[in-house]
Amino acid sequence: MTSIVSRHLFGPGPTNAYPEATEGLARPLLGHLDPAFLAIMDETCEWLRAVWGTAQNRTLPLSATGSAGMEAAFVNTVHPGDVVVVAVNGLFGQRMCEVASRCGAEVVAVQHRWGSPVDPERVVAAHPAPAIVAAVHAETSTGARSDIAALGAAVRDAGDALLLVDAVTSIAGIELLADEWGIDIGYAGTQKCLGVAPGLAPFTISERAFGRRVERPRSWYLDLGLLGGYVGDAGPGPRARTYHHTAPVAMVSSLHAALGRILEEGLDNVWARHAAAGQALQDGLEAMGLELFADAGHRLPELTTVRVPDGVDSADVRRTLLERYDIEIGAGVGEFAASVWRIGLMGPNASPDAVALVLHALGDVLGRPTSG
Amino acid sequence: MTSIVSRHLFGPGPTNAYPEATEGLARPLLGHLDPAFLAIMDETCEWLRAVWGTAQNRTLPLSATGSAGMEAAFVNTVHPGDVVVVAVNGLFGQRMCEVASRCGAEVVAVQHRWGSPVDPERVVAAHPAPAIVAAVHAETSTGARSDIAALGAAVRDAGDALLLVDAVTSIAGIELLADEWGIDIGYAGTQKCLGVAPGLAPFTISERAFGRRVERPRSWYLDLGLLGGYVGDAGPGPRARTYHHTAPVAMVSSLHAALGRILEEGLDNVWARHAAAGQALQDGLEAMGLELFADAGHRLPELTTVRVPDGVDSADVRRTLLERYDIEIGAGVGEFAASVWRIGLMGPNASPDAVALVLHALGDVLGRPTSG
Repeated sequence: MTSIVSRHLFGPGPTNAYPEATEGLARPLLGHLDPAFLAIMDETCEWLRAVWGTAQNRTLPLSATGSAGMEAAFVNTVHPGDVVVVAVNGLFGQRMCEVASRCGAEVVAVQHRWGSPVDPERVVAAHPAPAIVAAVHAETSTGARSDIAALGAAVRDAGDALLLVDAVTSIAGIELLADEWGIDIGYAGTQKCLGVAPGLAPFTISERAFGRRVERPRSWYLDLGLLGGYVGDAGPGPRARTYHHTAPVAMVSSLHAALGRILEEGLDNVWARHAAAGQALQDGLEAMGLELFADAGHRLPELTTVRVPDGVDSADVRRTLLERYDIEIGAGVGEFAASVWRIGLMGPNASPDAVALVLHALGDVLGRPTSG
Repeated sequence: MTSIVSRHLFGPGPTNAYPEATEGLARPLLGHLDPAFLAIMDETCEWLRAVWGTAQNRTLPLSATGSAGMEAAFVNTVHPGDVVVVAVNGLFGQRMCEVASRCGAEVVAVQHRWGSPVDPERVVAAHPAPAIVAAVHAETSTGARSDIAALGAAVRDAGDALLLVDAVTSIAGIELLADEWGIDIGYAGTQKCLGVAPGLAPFTISERAFGRRVERPRSWYLDLGLLGGYVGDAGPGPRARTYHHTAPVAMVSSLHAALGRILEEGLDNVWARHAAAGQALQDGLEAMGLELFADAGHRLPELTTVRVPDGVDSADVRRTLLERYDIEIGAGVGEFAASVWRIGLMGPNASPDAVALVLHALGDVLGRPTSG
């Protein structure tokens, strides 16, 4: 019999799951129209509103991974020829350009140096009257955090564009206040700070954006007009469930369990825990003589990027960490594939023991012992 | 503390999971690029080829539910203005028309009476030179089984259209021989006879169909040209993994475990088990004086449709079964919503104990005791 492999998932995601999420995943399956499941779905949507920081009725877990959330965001809101301004400061901003373009957008990409945050002034100056302005809150490819509050204010001052935000790596890890910041369309993933397996895309859309949506989008599966009935929130009027597709019941139950745990701990406490773990990791890496990659003052606590020291083989180190310690960390992305590591401390891994473990193990493999 | 709800899922799906699938779901998560996970993904694709009855290299689990499989099938193969002939004998054929139309197809729908199988002659006669002919193998809305071998032969005789088949409710339940029957594009779901939670769409596409695909489909998430690299089968040449999206690792591990169990039992034995359970159920229902809905000779064993007796409230019976016995059966669909029940015995529920339980319980609720 082969033994079951167990890893410390300290890469850019997936992270290890909260124990509650694993328990939710393994429960007996329910029918997707069972009253017991519908209650779980309702509560999941309600709790998602809490982690999004929104009162938007149309907040739900889409039945696919975070990348499908990006697709849903654009396919439902881009009318042919619409100008979409995309702030690009990493891979996921780049991907937004590609996805928006496939949806028929005229894309205006505002390029930023990788590792830097998005500059609201440059983004807003890029076009006088875009239909949509899009940005990534927490760039998973670089570890940079952008100020969405400032971007939202700038976008509102400049006109009436919709604000579309990727919160895949920020949700339930750092402050996220969708309504206060003016996020009209937001998507996320479950496999980062929510501490759930990958497979769902928490999604939210404002009434304003929903009112401007594409009536019959090219995607049937991600059509928000049809999905309203699926979660029993078809807008004003009596709540009615309509069959759209079979909900991924196990994944939804798992997300439900994790959200319950997160809200019981308290969002402020969860954010503080991620902040503390990230700071301790970044301090420890610098104490080891390593250089952080993302700009100071704009570093995500939940995903730390660090430069691979000269003369060190990035892949070798990652392989040794995996083989010796069952620790996964991530490579860099694009031109930084071999010169940057990405270390994620998300969900249950935002903890002192994870910090201690990864610092010790990395110090050992690099021959730079930590003081701990 | 609330007790955990556990149901007998005898509806049209999801079914209860094979125990191996539940175990696979609850294992420690792996990174989506971890060598241990890539080995699981490779074996999953290999085992999917076995249940599809295909040697097609491009066979993989798409990261969304079966309905997204339908979307992937059309979005990757329909060029604007292509004629797509759809055999419609139930809800899922209807849905194919809608999805194909959104992809830009000129749809020719060939309507059949609900409960009847698809008629290959009528389908082939509907258009002289379609690009695609599409049909549902096992119509979940009606319980009818269509002869895809005969349809495939007719399509080949008539021209060079691609054959696109929905195998959501047939895969791993009844005979499915994709290569022998000439299926070019096939999609399925995990929550029926595969005995896994909903959330993945097993997919297969032939070289011929892949060669005619849309180069830059409207969907980035379901773009098969990009997904080849994701599963490490980017066609001829060295196998290389490219990051596309984060694989839903828990669901894939669960599917892997279920497939291992199914192939260990043997596909012939699995089909025979479904056939025996379905026949015993259908015999028992008729012995109870109930009338089956789907045409005799074309009934699916894994999904039985039965007419609600005159004077009986369909929803009342379903509610009582749920409350008294924790048994879920399905309502009918469309105009048959209140006049037909759908009883599924899929995956682990294709068993004598499930037959005995559902017959006894239904007999009890209807006041028609069974002899057993």
